[in-house]
Amino acid sequence: MQIEFLGTGAGSPGKFRNVSSLALRLLDEINSVWLFDVGEGTQHQILRSTIRPRKVDKIFITHLHGDHIFGLPGFLSSRSFQGGNGPLDIYGPKGIKEYVNVSLRISESRLAYHITFHELPKDTDGLIFEDNKFSVYAAPLEHRITSFGYRVVEHDHPGELMVDKLSALGIPSGPVYGRLKKGEVVTLDDGRTIDGKDMIGRAQPGRIVTIIGDTRKTANAEKLAQNANALVHESTFGKGENKLAKSYYHSTNTQAAQIAKQANAKMLLLNHISARYTGKMAHELEKQAQTIFPNTKVVKDFDVVDIPFIKD
Amino acid sequence: MQIEFLGTGAGSPGKFRNVSSLALRLLDEINSVWLFDVGEGTQHQILRSTIRPRKVDKIFITHLHGDHIFGLPGFLSSRSFQGGNGPLDIYGPKGIKEYVNVSLRISESRLAYHITFHELPKDTDGLIFEDNKFSVYAAPLEHRITSFGYRVVEHDHPGELMVDKLSALGIPSGPVYGRLKKGEVVTLDDGRTIDGKDMIGRAQPGRIVTIIGDTRKTANAEKLAQNANALVHESTFGKGENKLAKSYYHSTNTQAAQIAKQANAKMLLLNHISARYTGKMAHELEKQAQTIFPNTKVVKDFDVVDIPFIKD
Ligand SMILES: [Zn+2]
Ligand SMILES: [Zn+2]
Repeated sequence: MQIEFLGTGAGSPGKFRNVSSLALRLLDEINSVWLFDVGEGTQHQILRSTIRPRKVDKIFITHLHGDHIFGLPGFLSSRSFQGGNGPLDIYGPKGIKEYVNVSLRISESRLAYHITFHELPKDTDGLIFEDNKFSVYAAPLEHRITSFGYRVVEHDHPGELMVDKLSALGIPSGPVYGRLKKGEVVTLDDGRTIDGKDMIGRAQPGRIVTIIGDTRKTANAEKLAQNANALVHESTFGKGENKLAKSYYHSTNTQAAQIAKQANAKMLLLNHISARYTGKMAHELEKQAQTIFPNTKVVKDFDVVDIPFIKD
Repeated sequence: MQIEFLGTGAGSPGKFRNVSSLALRLLDEINSVWLFDVGEGTQHQILRSTIRPRKVDKIFITHLHGDHIFGLPGFLSSRSFQGGNGPLDIYGPKGIKEYVNVSLRISESRLAYHITFHELPKDTDGLIFEDNKFSVYAAPLEHRITSFGYRVVEHDHPGELMVDKLSALGIPSGPVYGRLKKGEVVTLDDGRTIDGKDMIGRAQPGRIVTIIGDTRKTANAEKLAQNANALVHESTFGKGENKLAKSYYHSTNTQAAQIAKQANAKMLLLNHISARYTGKMAHELEKQAQTIFPNTKVVKDFDVVDIPFIKD
């Protein structure tokens, strides 16, 4: 599981940062890539990355501002052109379906796959997707228009059956292993009773990634970020610009750091960086945030950040 | 007058060629830039050029395929964001207005300027714009969907009043100069009669630039290209692929060269080059076309081609 940042800028493309998009790489886990926001030029960035468009099977849109969606029709077309034919799900605020469908209809683009749209009601607050490996939650943020934060939760990996221990006890492999792995209490032919729970190693807690799109400082960001292994948070403004940030419905680096701290997140990745912050100043944004939340990084386009399991 | 190529590729963006867009730079003539097609990432290309978005006051769309229009909403938004507030005209096939308006509405983009849409009926064949410096003509091509070629005609520059000749004749400057410049016959106070036409230098014929979007070989391309100083023509396929080109509604390099020759064009600029043609093979496309029309160039992104006057 890695996050690959495809566009880390704010508002309009700059020479060094493209508009918003990031890829949650779940290749080892489910052989998929999920995109969060698809600003103009995202397909160009993907071309310069190792991501294959056909692997993208879910797209989550935080909000409908152009810098977060104008790359969507082009990406969808190229995914088809490059042989992608698996179904695709798109989650986002109401309007995303009309935008995509009108763009595809007017351009007479025919896709080789089906898109299922999941338009989230404004007051969505909770689970929006679940399968046997992942759950995704959404909650509204505070932006000029409807904007969602997303929380991706990997299900815990159950502990492994301790085969060494079983064979030391002289229990041969067979159907009984399956029952023990399920945690059942099993009575063996020789009369011994074995509790499966004693034969299973420790479960590995799944990872949590929270992606907070454009927003003012808001309680829902903290809620979505609870115990996250990685919190990606917008950082359009710098320390001391709280008033400016509030009036533009954006956040500062230090507000993001406060949220990471209060939420007990493990890592903070700041994006949506204004072109006002060039290389050195972006480093300054990072240092300011680190005084509040030490494990903070201001990310750049093409940064790939690994999300490790927490070992205790 | 120069043509700056912003995207010279076909279909989808490649590592070396972006999707379609070119700028006709009329800065010396009318302090304007006109765009022809606006594929995704055009605003990114402009960022790497010397073009200022606010100078763009006309956009001509050849056809509505995604690789020719998906950069339009982003460009329009950034033009506004970067201080552009002058009105803008967009010409193109029916549908361009809905595409732009839906994109701007859904993204809640508010522009600081007014757009006038000129949706051209399918059978448009003739003048679509005229002012005192330029005329623009359009005619349908043969593509899978409605596709127009455009012919931009600079009006002839009238000859200069031959001031040296007038002063040699002892005619002092004054209101009479204005009348002579208009070509009037003037009787001077001393009784001499002077024909203004004799006092005006030779007119400088204006330049003609023809832009042929995606199309099969078609007679209208030749008509639009008559005596053009520069003919920009798509070249999706190579020599010998006429059948393939026809079935995909595209042209080959040699078909484009034949059109340039038959139309008595002065220069042929081939674009819409498939990613199948890498550097060396693109050079081969150029050489093949040159056997038919010597002054041919396969253009690359960011090429700037000057369109000189023809001196005789
Ligand atoms: Zn944004
Ligand atoms: Zn095309």
